[in-house]
Amino acid sequence: MSEQRTALTGTALTGLVDTFERSAVFELEHPRYVGAPIYPAHWPGFVYTLHRHHEAVGAGVRTSASGTITMQEHSGTHIDALCHQAVEMQMFGGVAVTPEVQTPRGFTQLGAETIAPIFRRGILLDVPAATGVKTLGPGYLVTADDLALAERTQGVVVGEGDCVLIRTGTGSSYSDPESYLAGAGVGPDAARWLAARKPYLCGADNVAFDVPEFNDPELGALPCHVVLIYEAGIYIVENLQLEDLAASGNHEFLFVCLPLKLEGVTGSPVRPVALVLP
Amino acid sequence: MSEQRTALTGTALTGLVDTFERSAVFELEHPRYVGAPIYPAHWPGFVYTLHRHHEAVGAGVRTSASGTITMQEHSGTHIDALCHQAVEMQMFGGVAVTPEVQTPRGFTQLGAETIAPIFRRGILLDVPAATGVKTLGPGYLVTADDLALAERTQGVVVGEGDCVLIRTGTGSSYSDPESYLAGAGVGPDAARWLAARKPYLCGADNVAFDVPEFNDPELGALPCHVVLIYEAGIYIVENLQLEDLAASGNHEFLFVCLPLKLEGVTGSPVRPVALVLP
Amino acid sequence: MSEQRTALTGTALTGLVDTFERSAVFELEHPRYVGAPIYPAHWPGFVYTLHRHHEAVGAGVRTSASGTITMQEHSGTHIDALCHQAVEMQMFGGVAVTPEVQTPRGFTQLGAETIAPIFRRGILLDVPAATGVKTLGPGYLVTADDLALAERTQGVVVGEGDCVLIRTGTGSSYSDPESYLAGAGVGPDAARWLAARKPYLCGADNVAFDVPEFNDPELGALPCHVVLIYEAGIYIVENLQLEDLAASGNHEFLFVCLPLKLEGVTGSPVRPVALVLP
Amino acid sequence: MSEQRTALTGTALTGLVDTFERSAVFELEHPRYVGAPIYPAHWPGFVYTLHRHHEAVGAGVRTSASGTITMQEHSGTHIDALCHQAVEMQMFGGVAVTPEVQTPRGFTQLGAETIAPIFRRGILLDVPAATGVKTLGPGYLVTADDLALAERTQGVVVGEGDCVLIRTGTGSSYSDPESYLAGAGVGPDAARWLAARKPYLCGADNVAFDVPEFNDPELGALPCHVVLIYEAGIYIVENLQLEDLAASGNHEFLFVCLPLKLEGVTGSPVRPVALVLP
Repeated sequence: MSEQRTALTGTALTGLVDTFERSAVFELEHPRYVGAPIYPAHWPGFVYTLHRHHEAVGAGVRTSASGTITMQEHSGTHIDALCHQAVEMQMFGGVAVTPEVQTPRGFTQLGAETIAPIFRRGILLDVPAATGVKTLGPGYLVTADDLALAERTQGVVVGEGDCVLIRTGTGSSYSDPESYLAGAGVGPDAARWLAARKPYLCGADNVAFDVPEFNDPELGALPCHVVLIYEAGIYIVENLQLEDLAASGNHEFLFVCLPLKLEGVTGSPVRPVALVLP
Repeated sequence: MSEQRTALTGTALTGLVDTFERSAVFELEHPRYVGAPIYPAHWPGFVYTLHRHHEAVGAGVRTSASGTITMQEHSGTHIDALCHQAVEMQMFGGVAVTPEVQTPRGFTQLGAETIAPIFRRGILLDVPAATGVKTLGPGYLVTADDLALAERTQGVVVGEGDCVLIRTGTGSSYSDPESYLAGAGVGPDAARWLAARKPYLCGADNVAFDVPEFNDPELGALPCHVVLIYEAGIYIVENLQLEDLAASGNHEFLFVCLPLKLEGVTGSPVRPVALVLP
Repeated sequence: MSEQRTALTGTALTGLVDTFERSAVFELEHPRYVGAPIYPAHWPGFVYTLHRHHEAVGAGVRTSASGTITMQEHSGTHIDALCHQAVEMQMFGGVAVTPEVQTPRGFTQLGAETIAPIFRRGILLDVPAATGVKTLGPGYLVTADDLALAERTQGVVVGEGDCVLIRTGTGSSYSDPESYLAGAGVGPDAARWLAARKPYLCGADNVAFDVPEFNDPELGALPCHVVLIYEAGIYIVENLQLEDLAASGNHEFLFVCLPLKLEGVTGSPVRPVALVLP
Repeated sequence: MSEQRTALTGTALTGLVDTFERSAVFELEHPRYVGAPIYPAHWPGFVYTLHRHHEAVGAGVRTSASGTITMQEHSGTHIDALCHQAVEMQMFGGVAVTPEVQTPRGFTQLGAETIAPIFRRGILLDVPAATGVKTLGPGYLVTADDLALAERTQGVVVGEGDCVLIRTGTGSSYSDPESYLAGAGVGPDAARWLAARKPYLCGADNVAFDVPEFNDPELGALPCHVVLIYEAGIYIVENLQLEDLAASGNHEFLFVCLPLKLEGVTGSPVRPVALVLP
């Protein structure tokens, strides 16, 4: 590496770091704590206990504190890996679920470690804002028409490779698990509308992107999971915190998300952020 | 929000997304798997078991797979929260460790959730490259002189607010836990040298940044933890994977790291990345 | 060992095994399952996930299934070890809680592994039966008078070394956690009455032996724990299932309980049984 | 219940309790601690972290300590439930492994909660003592002839309903995991010999009753598990501590074992004891 290249890199880098410093950073992750809302299949969700405590052990002595996390990978704000879903023992891309692929310690293909770091254009489709309500009602299924209306009224167009975040308003009740778990979600025709635009990732501010109780006559339970993950290989992010971003009125941003390289795991907790440029 | 502003944002954003697409992204996280190296105090480290399996349950039927993660927060590539360290029952900034602050479920101050998303200038100080060896020897303590030499020969200058990554070469033996755990680390005078430059974060490619067995006559065990975390409030990242970045010859980059908002937890697993601009 | 002795042992043993076969065995443990009642400090209690599944892997092939238990030691029917309680950093027998005794991995003294196998006379004091109600009301504190009345009307006398099981009737609502956790318990004067008789162990059919919300003016929260464990070194068993035994009308029996040798742990799950001789 | 009956019960009971007090109680469970030997499929085995600590919080104030256990059910001394084994998706008694029977939270049939409290005649067959060695060599497979020899020379006869404990001597190296895991075990013809005698339970002082690495030409890996659990419904106990009992020279005793009522779990940790009558 030449000195000259370092210098050039430095100049561009300084500009970029400066851009970030002047950007607004919106956090899209809910805090993780014992008692946060959790879909029953993933109970108890996030648990933390501190076992190495700071304690008075002598003059000037340093102590370390640390603990144990027990966590279902689909608790809190998280991304689904493609191995999370299968239809008739086949996953996205025709990967067969054999005992070599599905093991007691996780999957040897399509696990969370295969998700690349994400730096992409993000689009917020704020459905309650588009339809003129505060939040969508319990169990409401967002439709393709809802998304098209949001796109139109919010001045954005979903394009290939984008990360599309759909706000239902459910996230505003995250601190009330019962209400949160009964909230709105995305319906199957909206998933078809999304898949046709070939986004990289879709996210929503509810527990399962889908409405957990909804059963599609054709696709069964969690139909958006079939359409997006299984058929199209599009990642889904759940339990997004979209209230701050929506309140800012920004619908287009840099979406950054760095899933952990959890080998063979069916998803990863994430702290996605939206950067709105100055 | 006006349509015009959206349009402007869109143009700048397109340029930025384009910049990222043309950047080289270096991954700085080791994969997480059962049996990865773990410091004894944090044993067993990362454990994952899959309990919801895909299984043949009927024609056309979708299935979900998911599992249970049990993890010490200081396993794998992770960032230390400021509550991780105390001296005589006091943490960074003079926060006293009282029963209100230190609870069985974690800390009410200085936990991982207080770490902001990190988009900053990153600097790689490659000590073995500077000193002309392949990797530093077992238990070697990186000195201030080593860092100054690396800075000088690698054409970079550590500045306030930077994220400084120190390569010892130990990370090349991550797949061999015994060898990895016995590797080199950073010594206390190097920590003083770093703290004087006021970086935002320091990281290294070994198990504890410090050499775990080393006892400083004055500061005791893990002296860099005292100097950086306790005295200066500078974050430490451990178990970095710096081999790919070092091999590329880049020493200056955009460092991005998004610790999970783990309430009261003494650290967070992370997937940091280095972006080298085109 | 002589042949003769074996023969003699054999004869007596045959008689004893025969006695057991003709005895009525009453189970005193509630089943352990996800969602069982749990005191908030010990949430989430018992969790089990199966990760090694039986699956069709070939003609005639054997498979093993197994899983992961995550459990607070004070969940379900369990015995408290003496290290579970301290007053001003001192445990039973004046053992000081120093960093050598209390470690992040448990206690080096008074842990569950120090509890001997228990084969002793058991006494059931059925308070609702004695007082003519079906079950004691929410938050009711069993008194010394209640115990004396039960002793008198049920034809038993608590003696030194006995295992005394106190029925409040709360256990009948174990399948309804909210109701169960709000149930009756034992009050401090009853604990004094018990301690004076020097039993080996006391148990009750509620979540904490004490009423968790009760604060004694002198002893504070969980006063029976102070009186029995801390002052007297008498073990406490919680979450007993006493309904079947009580329904049988037996108040005196062989009490058998084999706590696990969990080194340094503050309690152990147990399956105590009451054997009523023929 | 009449007073008279209580009195009678009391007399017989007093005699029995007295018998137990004068009996020698041999413990057959190894202590449970972090780092104990564990078969790789069940790694990390037993883990305990203490999170509620005793701490100085005020004059006269009581504190409770408690922690979190994470445990594979087949760690340490444990009994296998019948659902632990299947051949071609069928368990003991022809129970088919369907999605209704095998769930992510465990089995709805043949789980640990179905094992009755065990009070039965126990027989120790001490193979090294019979064959005149200190301990059987690494990987040695106990044969039917070995058991017959032990029976003959040790003056006992295995009968229907008995609990048969087979000593290989491997348990003497429990504190050295590598050596312990490489130890001796029971071979398939010994399992046939045992099954023909219809015992209630068989146990051994090694990690898997079988020798884990052994593959029977006909039955495959873990053939004793096929013969005893799958074919005959005979329980297996593993990791027994038989050194103290063997040293005492007693080969016939009362065997008591109380597996936890872990619903749907494939095994239970246990603390079996052998009582040798006076």
